[in-house]
Parts: sequence; structure tokens; C-alpha cells
Amino acid sequence: MTDLLRAGTDLDLSIVDPRSTPGFEGGKAEGAAALAAGADEISHLQERLYAASRAGRTPRVLLVLQAMDTAGKGGIVRHVVGAVDPQGVQLAAFKKPTPEELAEHFLARIERRLPAPGMIGVFDRSHYEDVLIARVRSLAEPAVIQRRYGEIRDFERRVADGGTRIVKVMLHISPEEQKARLAERLDRPDKHWKYNPGDVDERLLWPDYMAAYERAIAETDADHAPWYVVPADRKWFARLAVQQLLIDALRDIDPQWPTADFDVEAEKARLAAS
Amino acid sequence: MTDLLRAGTDLDLSIVDPRSTPGFEGGKAEGAAALAAGADEISHLQERLYAASRAGRTPRVLLVLQAMDTAGKGGIVRHVVGAVDPQGVQLAAFKKPTPEELAEHFLARIERRLPAPGMIGVFDRSHYEDVLIARVRSLAEPAVIQRRYGEIRDFERRVADGGTRIVKVMLHISPEEQKARLAERLDRPDKHWKYNPGDVDERLLWPDYMAAYERAIAETDADHAPWYVVPADRKWFARLAVQQLLIDALRDIDPQWPTADFDVEAEKARLAAS
Repeated sequence: MTDLLRAGTDLDLSIVDPRSTPGFEGGKAEGAAALAAGADEISHLQERLYAASRAGRTPRVLLVLQAMDTAGKGGIVRHVVGAVDPQGVQLAAFKKPTPEELAEHFLARIERRLPAPGMIGVFDRSHYEDVLIARVRSLAEPAVIQRRYGEIRDFERRVADGGTRIVKVMLHISPEEQKARLAERLDRPDKHWKYNPGDVDERLLWPDYMAAYERAIAETDADHAPWYVVPADRKWFARLAVQQLLIDALRDIDPQWPTADFDVEAEKARLAAS
Repeated sequence: MTDLLRAGTDLDLSIVDPRSTPGFEGGKAEGAAALAAGADEISHLQERLYAASRAGRTPRVLLVLQAMDTAGKGGIVRHVVGAVDPQGVQLAAFKKPTPEELAEHFLARIERRLPAPGMIGVFDRSHYEDVLIARVRSLAEPAVIQRRYGEIRDFERRVADGGTRIVKVMLHISPEEQKARLAERLDRPDKHWKYNPGDVDERLLWPDYMAAYERAIAETDADHAPWYVVPADRKWFARLAVQQLLIDALRDIDPQWPTADFDVEAEKARLAAS
């Protein structure tokens, strides 16, 4: 499944169908069953990753989530990441930068939230905002945006070299599906708090955002920091796909249980005498 | 159930049976079913708590977990806290203080990790280490330990006044159960990484630790910062009890969905036209 989602550097988002389910034959029910099965596997792999770090090994995973509003980042965190022991996850949600953050380099706040050894880091939005909304809304000069692509490449190269498996995901929804989801938020008083009038302003700039995504992905896709475009009109598929991407990354790391750095038989004797 | 677990200021741990299940009639299977039902409720309450904070309200919850090694703090985090949306939880595990932390006031590192508005904070160990192991191992002068009780009382009063519902839990296991759990860690190579020879050293000081817990609880139990002693030889009961304590705290806050701060009908029209 996951190979089919890899973006590459010549991405054309207009030919990726947000309702498609590449590499998965079943429907919603089969998807839910596969997600439940995957939750067990990811949970076990995460424990091995964490355990390995206790023995001084440094592998870690960084999942970067980017998407238009309502595409389902929150659902991924809740239903995919939420299946993992919270002790093994470091979640960072990047909002509009504060004045303090604006005064420093755009990667500084990102660097501070990178996952520790043995951890699965999850970025809900990321440094890509600085080449997405920043480009669409002209929050920085074009030359600055252009320079940022290179800075991101260098940054991610360094992070990957330090032992972090990077997985970058764009959740790809259609403007029609977004409209339906925003309408639901307006229809339900218990969802009003999730609605922001600014969402409609951003929505009107949809083509600009798609162009910004294509450009950012083309500039920064790399084998050590791959981008995946995950069709997200069907929530169940998007969750399954991101779970599979995490499982692939963890299997590839293949973390091993550390061996004891103490004398097991001597400790058994001490314990028995205690 | 939870009233029966309240410690009060004249606690005698020797009369609390670690295998008991106060207030719960059923066995392991009924406990697992109740835990699953509670997971749904806690999940809904947490979402309301988070939503309420978006409207500028400030309630939050702080769960403090203290226990002897192997008592099951990790299992509580995984199985009770893990049922909540990770976006609504701030977990802090306090290890042996670093040299930097030792150079500052013992509450400074605690203060930095207090939960934000709308969040459920979980402390895996806490400032109580500074009056537990610090007392048992004479890491500070008796007069300093004595002063710390008062500092903790003042600190928790201030935190509670700021809108944080504090729930303090001691997981209470028997030394026999700990011995069995440590033996299992030594028997299974995939558990060796969880074993630390120092655990047996602490185990030999069991009566001193129980005395330190009794004293700390007596000094710091208060209606705004209550202590609960949760029998923990049966893991399923300890999980259910802590879940119920969190549910009680959240029900008591009774967070409400915020009302829209925008014109709902006008937004529906804007969305329809977009």
C-alpha cells in the first residue's frame, strides 16, 4: 500500500483522487478490522523501540502531518497514535507562531520538539507551514520562501542522519468533502468550538494551497525524508494508511530487546533473599 | 468506590489490604468490562474539558501517581490515560533530578510541567519523591524535609486555586507481589530492560518507605488536593479505581461546550457560497 502513496518530486495533486483507497481492496468494515489488527502490531513495535533506547541506541520516528483544515489530522492522532502507549509518544502541535517564535529562525521551535531517542514524535503541522501558508498569504518574501526549501532539506538531512526515521504525510481531501465537514461543524452546537470563520477564508485559496503543497513536496521529498500523499475523503482509509506508514518505519528499524547489563542469576538470588 | 479510597490524615498503610477491591463487587472480568465502559465516558468528558478551554475557561486536571517499583504506574498510563485522546493529555515522568534540577528549588521542575488549561496532566512520580526517597535515603536534612511538606501544601493550594483539580494516588502493593513481579522481569529476556538491580536495594527499605508515605500523605492530604490509596496487587482493580477517580474529577468540573463566538447563520451562508 505505502509504495503507492509515495509522492515523489513530480507530483500533480489534481490527478490524485481523494476518495481512492490505493492498495486496499476492502471497504470501511475491512478497514476498521485492519486498523484494529495494526494497533496491536504498532503497540508491540513501539515498546521494542522504547526498550532499545534504554540500552543507548538512538532510533526514533518522526511523523509529520500536514493538511487542509478538517482533513483529519486530529482523527489520526486520536485513532492511530492513540493506540500507542502515551509514554512512547511525543506530540507537538504547531500553531500560528508567537511573537517570540517569529523573532527566531523558523526551524528553532521545530528543533526543540524533535523526538527523544526511542520515541515516536508526531508533528501536527510543522515547519512546512512556513512554506505553505507563508507562501499563499505572502507572509515572507519569495526569496525567503525559496531559501527555506533548502534550509528544510539540510535540516531534515541532519535529523535523519541522527537516527530519526522521518515520515511526512499530506492528508489529501477534496474541497467538496471539506465543505461537508465544515457544514457539519456549523450544524452541531457541540462542534461549534471546532469551527473558525478563518477556515472559509483559507478555503477560498484552495488552488493556491495545492500549488504550494506541490512545490513544497517537490522541493523536499527525499528517500531519507519521504512524502506520502494520503487520500483522506474516507477517514477510515487515511487512518489505516498512516498506521501502515508508521508500521513500515518501525519494522524497518527492527528494534531489538536490549540484553541485560547485570548478572541475571545473581539478581535472582538477591531477589529471592530479599 | 472512590470515597472508600480517600486516605485522610491518619492513614495506617498496614491495615490497607493490597489485594482488596473496595467498593467493587465483581472480579477480573467484570472489572475489565467496567474499564471499557469507563473509557468511553472519560473520553467524552475529556473532549468537553478541552473544548471548554478554547472558550477561555481554565479548568484542568492533575493526576499524581506515586508508588513502589512495579506497582503499575506504567500500566495506569497505558490503559487508563491511553484511552484518552493524546491531544488532551500532558504526561510528565520525573526521574532522578539532573544536576541542573538539583541546583534549583525542588518544585521548579514540577511547576514547568503543570497542565495547560483544558488538559489532563499526569505526573509519573512527582515532587513527592523529594519527601519519600529523599527522606528514606537521607538525601536532605530532616529540617529540609520538614520544610518541604509546608512548601508542597502552599504549592498545591496555589495550583488548586488556579483551577486545577488535583488527584493524588498512591498505588499500594504488597512486598510479596513486588517480589513476584520482579521475578517475572528476571525470568523473561524481553523484560530484562525493565529490571534495575537498584530495585532490590529499595525493596530492602520497604518499612521505611511505608513510613515515609504515611507521613507525606498525612502532611499533605487536603480536600483541594486529596490523596487516595489504591490497592494495587490486582492490576485490573487499580486501573479501574484510577479511571473512576479521573471520571469523578471530570464530572465534578462538568465542562460545557462553548457557545459560538461567531454568527452561525452568516457562516452557513458564507460556506455555502464558497
